[in-house]
Amino acid sequence: MRVLTSGESHGPFLSFILEGLPAGLRVDVNFVNRELSRRQRGYGRGERMNIESDSVEFVGGLRRGVTLGSPLCGLIRNADHENWKAVMAPHPTGESAENSRATNRELYTPRPGHADLAGSVKYGFVDARNVLERASARETAARVAAGAVCKLLLAEFGIRVYSHVIGIGKVSAGISSEQALACYDAIEESPVRCGDPSAAAEMIKEIETARSEGDSVGGVFEIIATGVPAGLGSYVHFDRRLDAAVAGSVMSVPGVKGVEFGAGFRAASMRGSEVHDEIEPSDTDPRGYRRLSNNAGGIEGGVSNGEPIVVRVAMKPIPTLRKPLRTIDVLTRTSVVAGYERSDVCAVPAASVVCEAMVALELAKALVEKYGGDSIDEMKAHMQCWQVRLPFSREV
Amino acid sequence: MRVLTSGESHGPFLSFILEGLPAGLRVDVNFVNRELSRRQRGYGRGERMNIESDSVEFVGGLRRGVTLGSPLCGLIRNADHENWKAVMAPHPTGESAENSRATNRELYTPRPGHADLAGSVKYGFVDARNVLERASARETAARVAAGAVCKLLLAEFGIRVYSHVIGIGKVSAGISSEQALACYDAIEESPVRCGDPSAAAEMIKEIETARSEGDSVGGVFEIIATGVPAGLGSYVHFDRRLDAAVAGSVMSVPGVKGVEFGAGFRAASMRGSEVHDEIEPSDTDPRGYRRLSNNAGGIEGGVSNGEPIVVRVAMKPIPTLRKPLRTIDVLTRTSVVAGYERSDVCAVPAASVVCEAMVALELAKALVEKYGGDSIDEMKAHMQCWQVRLPFSREV
Amino acid sequence: MRVLTSGESHGPFLSFILEGLPAGLRVDVNFVNRELSRRQRGYGRGERMNIESDSVEFVGGLRRGVTLGSPLCGLIRNADHENWKAVMAPHPTGESAENSRATNRELYTPRPGHADLAGSVKYGFVDARNVLERASARETAARVAAGAVCKLLLAEFGIRVYSHVIGIGKVSAGISSEQALACYDAIEESPVRCGDPSAAAEMIKEIETARSEGDSVGGVFEIIATGVPAGLGSYVHFDRRLDAAVAGSVMSVPGVKGVEFGAGFRAASMRGSEVHDEIEPSDTDPRGYRRLSNNAGGIEGGVSNGEPIVVRVAMKPIPTLRKPLRTIDVLTRTSVVAGYERSDVCAVPAASVVCEAMVALELAKALVEKYGGDSIDEMKAHMQCWQVRLPFSREV
Amino acid sequence: MRVLTSGESHGPFLSFILEGLPAGLRVDVNFVNRELSRRQRGYGRGERMNIESDSVEFVGGLRRGVTLGSPLCGLIRNADHENWKAVMAPHPTGESAENSRATNRELYTPRPGHADLAGSVKYGFVDARNVLERASARETAARVAAGAVCKLLLAEFGIRVYSHVIGIGKVSAGISSEQALACYDAIEESPVRCGDPSAAAEMIKEIETARSEGDSVGGVFEIIATGVPAGLGSYVHFDRRLDAAVAGSVMSVPGVKGVEFGAGFRAASMRGSEVHDEIEPSDTDPRGYRRLSNNAGGIEGGVSNGEPIVVRVAMKPIPTLRKPLRTIDVLTRTSVVAGYERSDVCAVPAASVVCEAMVALELAKALVEKYGGDSIDEMKAHMQCWQVRLPFSREV
Repeated sequence: MRVLTSGESHGPFLSFILEGLPAGLRVDVNFVNRELSRRQRGYGRGERMNIESDSVEFVGGLRRGVTLGSPLCGLIRNADHENWKAVMAPHPTGESAENSRATNRELYTPRPGHADLAGSVKYGFVDARNVLERASARETAARVAAGAVCKLLLAEFGIRVYSHVIGIGKVSAGISSEQALACYDAIEESPVRCGDPSAAAEMIKEIETARSEGDSVGGVFEIIATGVPAGLGSYVHFDRRLDAAVAGSVMSVPGVKGVEFGAGFRAASMRGSEVHDEIEPSDTDPRGYRRLSNNAGGIEGGVSNGEPIVVRVAMKPIPTLRKPLRTIDVLTRTSVVAGYERSDVCAVPAASVVCEAMVALELAKALVEKYGGDSIDEMKAHMQCWQVRLPFSREV
Repeated sequence: MRVLTSGESHGPFLSFILEGLPAGLRVDVNFVNRELSRRQRGYGRGERMNIESDSVEFVGGLRRGVTLGSPLCGLIRNADHENWKAVMAPHPTGESAENSRATNRELYTPRPGHADLAGSVKYGFVDARNVLERASARETAARVAAGAVCKLLLAEFGIRVYSHVIGIGKVSAGISSEQALACYDAIEESPVRCGDPSAAAEMIKEIETARSEGDSVGGVFEIIATGVPAGLGSYVHFDRRLDAAVAGSVMSVPGVKGVEFGAGFRAASMRGSEVHDEIEPSDTDPRGYRRLSNNAGGIEGGVSNGEPIVVRVAMKPIPTLRKPLRTIDVLTRTSVVAGYERSDVCAVPAASVVCEAMVALELAKALVEKYGGDSIDEMKAHMQCWQVRLPFSREV
Repeated sequence: MRVLTSGESHGPFLSFILEGLPAGLRVDVNFVNRELSRRQRGYGRGERMNIESDSVEFVGGLRRGVTLGSPLCGLIRNADHENWKAVMAPHPTGESAENSRATNRELYTPRPGHADLAGSVKYGFVDARNVLERASARETAARVAAGAVCKLLLAEFGIRVYSHVIGIGKVSAGISSEQALACYDAIEESPVRCGDPSAAAEMIKEIETARSEGDSVGGVFEIIATGVPAGLGSYVHFDRRLDAAVAGSVMSVPGVKGVEFGAGFRAASMRGSEVHDEIEPSDTDPRGYRRLSNNAGGIEGGVSNGEPIVVRVAMKPIPTLRKPLRTIDVLTRTSVVAGYERSDVCAVPAASVVCEAMVALELAKALVEKYGGDSIDEMKAHMQCWQVRLPFSREV
Repeated sequence: MRVLTSGESHGPFLSFILEGLPAGLRVDVNFVNRELSRRQRGYGRGERMNIESDSVEFVGGLRRGVTLGSPLCGLIRNADHENWKAVMAPHPTGESAENSRATNRELYTPRPGHADLAGSVKYGFVDARNVLERASARETAARVAAGAVCKLLLAEFGIRVYSHVIGIGKVSAGISSEQALACYDAIEESPVRCGDPSAAAEMIKEIETARSEGDSVGGVFEIIATGVPAGLGSYVHFDRRLDAAVAGSVMSVPGVKGVEFGAGFRAASMRGSEVHDEIEPSDTDPRGYRRLSNNAGGIEGGVSNGEPIVVRVAMKPIPTLRKPLRTIDVLTRTSVVAGYERSDVCAVPAASVVCEAMVALELAKALVEKYGGDSIDEMKAHMQCWQVRLPFSREV
């Protein structure tokens, strides 16, 4: 399974092509659009989210709502493009020559914390607008749409992907993965995606304080995938490990600076006898055994072990601040303060939805690799015929 | 650049093929062997490290010590294979039929924390020996050898990769990245790779206590890459981000459960105005500017920004314990305690050396992609002719 | 460089995303549209080409006509989709349930020579419409658009890709690669893309005869790439050979059944002393040497050698015939004749344009790999600074 | 499935790592060695084949002759390395400094038809020895060993790969694919792998004449794969077509200049009504239908259609000739004749064995992708459970 995305923040469309989906998957467009809407929500978002109301239009790979096995192409319109045509039209426009640098919204003061400076050096740009339009987190809408389709695929096999926020700024919620799943409706309703109501109230205050000071806040959230069968990923080669794939994909989300599985960094200070998840026989578990804990976060030796996959993610604060950060003007080489582009104060709840999509994408890839995957029916047949023969399944 | 590794823990050889190296790189075999030796050291290692004294033999891709541009193949002999021939000979032996399960060292009690159970389910094995021989961390010797060659490549361009341990068990060292580089000789001499002598002494005690209790400990270490030019990796597509690549590769090292860049998880509770690394003009820096901090850990928007790359890694305790963990016997479905295979009590210093190799591998890949890379001379010519023309270089 | 395409023959759009283009490439949309138009021309096309007048709309990766280094997304509208909405709408429509198999244009009689049968077995379809909509050669319009952008990239480095037809049905043209380049304007004007006027007239007759008999014809054409520098591709690993990449890409064009380089199959019956392209010193060639022939077709040992790359391609006749072919009805298992969908009689001239695009794509990939390629300016700087230092260049 | 090979012609070893093999495959080392021996045979080989008697030693991925699912590593010793240690030792030797260019066997006269010149330009070499050691066809021994393992995998699913020679120099054999399979034992015995005894005698004469004149000859051979299930490869994306993959891999074999499937180039001059393989119901075929011909060579629309896959391959004559070819001395820029390195007069029978291996590799990849493929047992279960449910199988 391969995916490519395209699109600039103020260009006409975001788009993606997802290649390698099995045939016969019913794609509920409303579900995909709800996922896009989940990404747009969350306390602390800026004005852009009032302009955009994202929805996907599929233009390839789907026949009357069902996948054909051929590459899926989806488009998401940027409503704001109407206001940016002079600056960001893909096709050259006659008027462009007349434009001053100001009307072109060129940017010579790279903003710390963004790709502006490093990206300009890489591609040889002077105008960092050329960088920030693609480096913008707006691009993640395309990933969420592609990930939503992967979620539909996973759901056919009983796999579901959730997320909840466990920290914003200095506020932490005391809520476990199990508790989060138990109150997931409340999490979906929470403006900060947090299942601990008093912590959620504090988080909102944290965001408000930051906003009033022209500052921004980051946070920590957790992605949980349930129903994942044992045996996805592999220990046989380092680049086939499921944890490596998931960590890489999650780290690729703008603003993410840390990723951990299960007990994660906490495991580093625990004893081996406390960390590892003991196994005991079970009469009720269809596998014939059960785990007494899940400190591994569902992955041992790079392979899913049948327990929920639990990934915790640290997001840095949004780097676009009203409060000025020092930078240079690349033309004059003088010291200036970074410009302010309309931005969020806190995008942690949105980022948790984006990371759900990335985890879904990696799990879908691994599932298709494990079970073949030319069609949903074939995948199901493969999975069923084999599971009954597994050495550890009770039927044998 | 592509790499494949092969080899089981008690098979005859570990091996790797590294494809895509530029021609004309002088490979000092002694350097590679010293890297292998660094991986074998560290307080808390088990007996296996007394048996093995790893060294590489290159059998392809090298002519009198210089790369040809063709794939590099290296072999590392497992001295212990002599004792395991009956069990782990790749070619079938006449005697095998006679062997009992015991003399075959078959394993029916999957050890919690290892790939044993998940791997057996994946590949349909009953005998987890088939899993653990490859899932063993011994495999990382091949990565260290390949990574050592990448370090030699990076060194041609002034890039160096370091590591130091900042926590073992409950002991943390108070030492910054800058301090670590300043006392790197002492770190290389330290049995726990820690630059804070009093913390190092405590770490050794922590390991000794764990050993005496039949337990194990994990820890936290830091990888630092200096001299990395701005512009490696890219923000243009999520799977081209340098942080994604490094995070995935580091997470693929056995025992690693968490990865963070720069301020990492700590950044999640900081304000935007505290986190982002301000820029100011500089008369002394050849780029004409400098950063006032490095909370980004050298990567912004998925692109190296010219500051040192700083990755912090959490390693869980070794899962093989003398202190018994509960598991099942997969044949009888009864509750048993996991068997003990000779093992380390603490492998944190070794893992830090392995992660150096993984970071070196990813940086080498990104460098070759950026500068072409058919030969060292061509890479240097490309880099030099371009850097003088960069918009942000002072010559312009 | 990576490319994904999407789109069904009667769906709303064909689309592609091309990732890995350097920044700073000026993309002339008119050029791309002319390439699309070249694909639609050619004697022997069917009615569909009267319905469609392909043009591309770029929706990502381009700012006012210049590449940003970010993924390029292009859309090509299928005008015919208006007539097929009930059958091929990607999003489900309310009316679909009422539709009979006939109004859905379902196909139970797999057509010999198409993917219908093999594709249905692969994806578990009964209705081969699900196959043929994607397996249709209409998909190649997306490739031609992506390839046109690659041609613009190549043109920056003096590389050009041409094609001409040398056989249709039983008619062969006696025209060499050199002659073809010399009369290329005439080839562009020729309805069969043939530079030999009398052969061209015979070819048209061949097509007319086939049409009148309800039959179809194939042919042979040649792709020529000039200005290709020595050193693209590599002999160091089999999957890095330029001939392997080009052969695979050309063979992926619908209808292509044979590919050869230079003397190709003819070389198999020649002596070594006749085939290999001798080298002699030259005062006029900037390289200081020249070749006395080009039987290798510009590639030796999988590496471009600086001579024109010459690829000859065999295309089978279009498999959709008015003249009936025997097949089965997959529902009734009875013998029937294959249905006729509107089709071309001869698509050889169109296929030659498609293969130009595939060759351009592979050359662009190889060029970017060789010279780095974050921006056009950087690529040019790299190429220039290095070429003067080559051991075989005269300056040394 | 991924494979990397390494090794120079006169280095110590050829090696390969094959990643992605299912577990539980019994690897008969004698079979692999017989395949290596088949590659070494054939009328027209040079002296090197008297020096080498290739055999593989597996050093990873295998436990007592059965695959573990982990990467397979194989080594093939170059006996001739003993005579080349001063020149081609991978590790630097003390004596090297003393060596003159002559004793180092450096080559300044690039041989037409080899990678010598293009490769030297690519990698910046003056001494073409650095090129030719890797560009040598000796490297294909590693491919044959890897391909032999793939053949064993394919055999588990009833798939077999054959080859026979149909032309050498100006001699052509009149033998169809079916006839070749019927007399395959004789082909295996034939010194030119030709099933037509009188043609074989002529071919030997052709080789002898060429040898006596210091010249060389090429030829044409055919690869046939039987038992390939319908549904390997895919039409949904151009780089997933089975014909594209096979054509690319076959074209990557040294000396190959042309590839065609089924009727191939001949199809270009046939009518559609003659070419396409009609289908009719069948009571005896388990699929319920049969084909009346196989002009497609077993692949329609890039997907295997269940008929034998038939690939025809053109090989140019060996470029190393006793009869001198003109070239330049790259140091003096004067005209010289190319040097002669010990070589074959005709390697067509050997190349046909190498191409068998490449076809086997591609089929194994496609099979593993289609059926999952963590273990042989699982692959078989997947295949069986699904085939009974196919829409076109008779049970439904």
